[in-house]
This record gives sequence, structure tokens and C-alpha cells, in this order.
Amino acid sequence: MNTPDIHAVKQFLLHLQDTICQQLSAIDGATFEEDSWQREGGGGGRSRVLRGGAIFEQAGVNFSHVHGDAMPASATAHRPELAGRSFEAMGVSLVVHPLNPYVPTSHANVRFFMAEKPGCEPVWWFGGGFDLTPFYGFEEDAIHWHKTARDLCQPFGEDVFPRYKKWCDDYFFIKHRNEQRGIGGLFFDDLNTPDFDHCFSFMQAVGNGYLEAYLPIVERRKALPWGERERDFQLYRRGRYVEFNLVWDRGTLFGLQTGGRTESILMSMPPLVRWEYSYQPEEGSPEAALYRDFLPVKDWV
Amino acid sequence: MNTPDIHAVKQFLLHLQDTICQQLSAIDGATFEEDSWQREGGGGGRSRVLRGGAIFEQAGVNFSHVHGDAMPASATAHRPELAGRSFEAMGVSLVVHPLNPYVPTSHANVRFFMAEKPGCEPVWWFGGGFDLTPFYGFEEDAIHWHKTARDLCQPFGEDVFPRYKKWCDDYFFIKHRNEQRGIGGLFFDDLNTPDFDHCFSFMQAVGNGYLEAYLPIVERRKALPWGERERDFQLYRRGRYVEFNLVWDRGTLFGLQTGGRTESILMSMPPLVRWEYSYQPEEGSPEAALYRDFLPVKDWV
Repeated sequence: MNTPDIHAVKQFLLHLQDTICQQLSAIDGATFEEDSWQREGGGGGRSRVLRGGAIFEQAGVNFSHVHGDAMPASATAHRPELAGRSFEAMGVSLVVHPLNPYVPTSHANVRFFMAEKPGCEPVWWFGGGFDLTPFYGFEEDAIHWHKTARDLCQPFGEDVFPRYKKWCDDYFFIKHRNEQRGIGGLFFDDLNTPDFDHCFSFMQAVGNGYLEAYLPIVERRKALPWGERERDFQLYRRGRYVEFNLVWDRGTLFGLQTGGRTESILMSMPPLVRWEYSYQPEEGSPEAALYRDFLPVKDWV
Repeated sequence: MNTPDIHAVKQFLLHLQDTICQQLSAIDGATFEEDSWQREGGGGGRSRVLRGGAIFEQAGVNFSHVHGDAMPASATAHRPELAGRSFEAMGVSLVVHPLNPYVPTSHANVRFFMAEKPGCEPVWWFGGGFDLTPFYGFEEDAIHWHKTARDLCQPFGEDVFPRYKKWCDDYFFIKHRNEQRGIGGLFFDDLNTPDFDHCFSFMQAVGNGYLEAYLPIVERRKALPWGERERDFQLYRRGRYVEFNLVWDRGTLFGLQTGGRTESILMSMPPLVRWEYSYQPEEGSPEAALYRDFLPVKDWV
């Protein structure tokens, strides 16, 4: 056991945000705008958004570090003993919405949380993960995505990847559609064993693994020609993203219901979305293949 | 006190759905498609949608009548004594998304609920209302909308309109934006006094009042010329509609979380929606006027 080094976590997160923005910007050509903001209760953040790029219709990459003297009870529903403690929460969270429907949407998040009370050991944990949401599936991409996830987990134990892969599949499930949001990846939370250094290393591996998992897929698909049909399907499927985030995603709901910065939280919303009553893909079409071959939970590696 | 006449309520609701569809179709020229569906636990519905009309980009008008032997506890959170009783729930619910941004979006709903237990008096109530969501506000339209609502309430008592107008304003509030969804109208629930006939009459007045409130506004605005700027703003503001319905609307959430028919529930989603990070209307613009002069709660009559 060792003491959590909050400063080191923050430095890592700020650097991660920089790196991810630089690399997305480099591949696209467009630049990120930045808003710095402060939270009334304590702390603030750095929201960055790239819009109307050649490859990315929108990419939002947020850093935030908020703290307060007394944690609201609603923030610790599953650990009521932490209510009222002083706390720190920091993280990087991003969603990338590509223009080309052959390039999948991606999401990543890494976060650290700590609650303190005079005279007590601090309580802390890490969480995070990344997941992929294709519109048109490619087996090669799905395998690369999951292999990258598996490889970064390997040094931390054989059971890590299967556990966090399943957690991701369980989490990104749209109950009212009986559908996965995408093809999954990694999701972990409440990570605080065996010690801080180990957990921090794992969180860094996940944060750093995201670009390694995503960029080769972007490179492979970014020049594929697409038309109105593919765009229509992409906009329709983006509706599922909205439905998941607004109806089921605990982070989004918690943020919106407790006075988080709405514009930063809803940077995850796609720039353009379509709903169509009772849409069904044509049998045997590439759109049907997404539902049949990619969305059902599968072991890709 | 008199016995609830479920059959009469159902006949009224079916007829209301017919009338509304006929009139919307008559003004637009396009026709409604119908899906009849059945619910596994008992009952079913009749979902109707008009799409790609000259005036209405989409109009969804649903009738449903569901029943069961044992009400789920989740359905009666605020009246736990009703859990396990046999129940009937029926209603008409509609959302109209016009193409022309000068024509406001409208929503209406009327519903009846009854729970029974052998040896006990049945417990029943009515609910409903209608509300308007303009993109570009017109004082004349707002006054007409609210006057129609007031006039239909008048025969039921002087206090009815102010009470249900306020309930509507309170309900259609988007907390995470600190904004009203639109300019309001009427909202009522749990109505079961003084007796069935009185309540049923009021529900009929609300159901019949919707077209009277909405159609003159459609007629006045449908031919106004509009361009990309107005369309962009309409699509952006539709995002607020999605946010309200998926994050805050109890009916939508309850339906999605308890296995309701997803396609019918989400017929309320706009056909096309836009999100834009940190959008602010230009000062002094017609878009700014919506936020300044129309969305804040106001007495229009």
C-alpha cells in the first residue's frame, strides 16, 4: 500500500489530453478550440473540441478536476459512508464522431476519485476504459481493437482483459433496444488493489492504449468512398448513441442531474442525428451485417 | 360518485386519434401509416405516423390500451398500495415536428388509468395536457395557444387553468439547461374529483382543444419562407426536445425502462437533430428573442 499521488495523476491526465488532441489534429488537419471553465463548488476543466474536420465531424476531449468539501449523497449512492467527506475527482473523457460512416465512433475515459476525512485513510479508486461503435463492421478492425485492449491488460494479469471486456459489454447495452451500443472494448471501475502504483499504471496503460487502438482503424477506413445511403445509416445509428447516453449512461445522467457543466457533458452528443420510426435494415445488406455480425457480444481475439 | 365507463373512454380515445390524424392529414396532404401492435402482458395499440409531409416532417399519433393482472411496483412508485392490483391504462399521445421552422412543434396527451382489487372500489384517474415548442416565437400564436387552453378550462372552474398552466411550466422544464422546453400550455394528472363524468368531460375538452389550439397557428405560419439559418436553429433546438424527453420525461423513461414498445415511445424523437457545442444566439437576433421573450415562464392571456 502506498499514498495516492494526486499530482502525478493530474499531470498524466493533462498530458494525455494534449497527446490525444495533437494526434487527432495531426491526422485530420483541423485544430481543437479550447474552453477553460471553473466550477462554483471548486475546481474546473479544460474542454476541447474539433469541429468540421476532414475526417472528424466532431471530436470532444475533456479534462476536468473538481473538488469540494462535502461530497453530495447522490454522488455516492453505492457507498453512502463517503457522503460528506471532502473529495477530488479528475478525468479525461472523449468522444470522436467521424464524418465518414466507414470510420467508427470511439469513446474513451480515464478517471480518478478520492474521498478524505480527517483521521482516516483516504478512500480512492480508478476507473475508465474505451469502446468502439462502428456503423459498418470490419472484422480486421474489431480484432485489432480488442487485441490492443487485451495486450495492454496482459502485464496486469491474465484475468484482467476478460473481466473488463465483459464489464464493457454489460455496461454499453441499450436495454430498450436489446442491443449493444457497439462492439465494446474495456470498462473498469472501483479499482484500488493491490496498491496505488499498480492501479495508476493500469489507468495509464488504458489511456495510452486508446490511440493505439483507434488510429490504425481511422487510417484504414478514412479514404473509403461513401454516399447518402451510408450517411443516412450513420445518422440513424447515432440515434442509438444519444439514446444510450441520455437514458442509461450513469456518468452523463449523474453530471446532468447534479449541476455539472452541461456543454462539456453533452460534447458526447453527435453533431447530427436522425431518427426513423420502425427502421429495419434490408436483409443481406451491409447494414444488416452490423446487427448480425458485430453488435452481438463476441470474443474477437 | 359514479362508476368509471372504460368503454366510453376507449371510444373517445380511438375517435380522437382518428380525428387528429384526419385533420393533420387534411392540412398536409400526406397520409398516416398505421401499425397495430400487441403487448405480451395484455393489450396493445395503434401507432400512426405521417412522414415527409409538405408541412409536417413527422407527426406521430399513438393510441394504446394496456392491461394486466398485477401492476408492477415500479409503475406505482408514488402509490405503493396499488402494486399487484389488476390495471388498465389507455391514452392518446402525439408529437408533431413541422418542417418549416416558423411552425412550432406541438405535443398532446390524454390518458386514463384504473386499478382494481376484488372487494374494493376501483381506483382511477385521468391525466393529460398539451404544450407548444416554438423555434421562432410569435406573440399572437402564444396568446392564441394559451387562450384556447384557458377557455376550455373555464367551464370546470376559475382555478383550473392557472393550476394546470403552472403544472405544465413546472413539468416541461429542462433542469440541466435551466430552460423551459417551450411556452407551455396545460398539464394535469391524478384527476379523479368530483366524479368520473366530470373528469372524463375535462379530459375530452383537453383532447378536443388541441387541434383548436394548434391548427390556426399552423395555418398562419406554414407559408412563411425560411432558409438554412432557420433550419439550423430548428435542428439545434430539437436537441433540447430530445434532451428533455430522454433525461427528464417520466412517461418516456418509464416506458423505456419497463419494456414498453420502444418504436412507439420514441416516435416523439425528431426526424433530424443537431447538437452544437457552446452555441449562443447572436444578441438582438430572432433566435435570441426565443430565449428572451418566449421561453421564460409568462402569463400569455
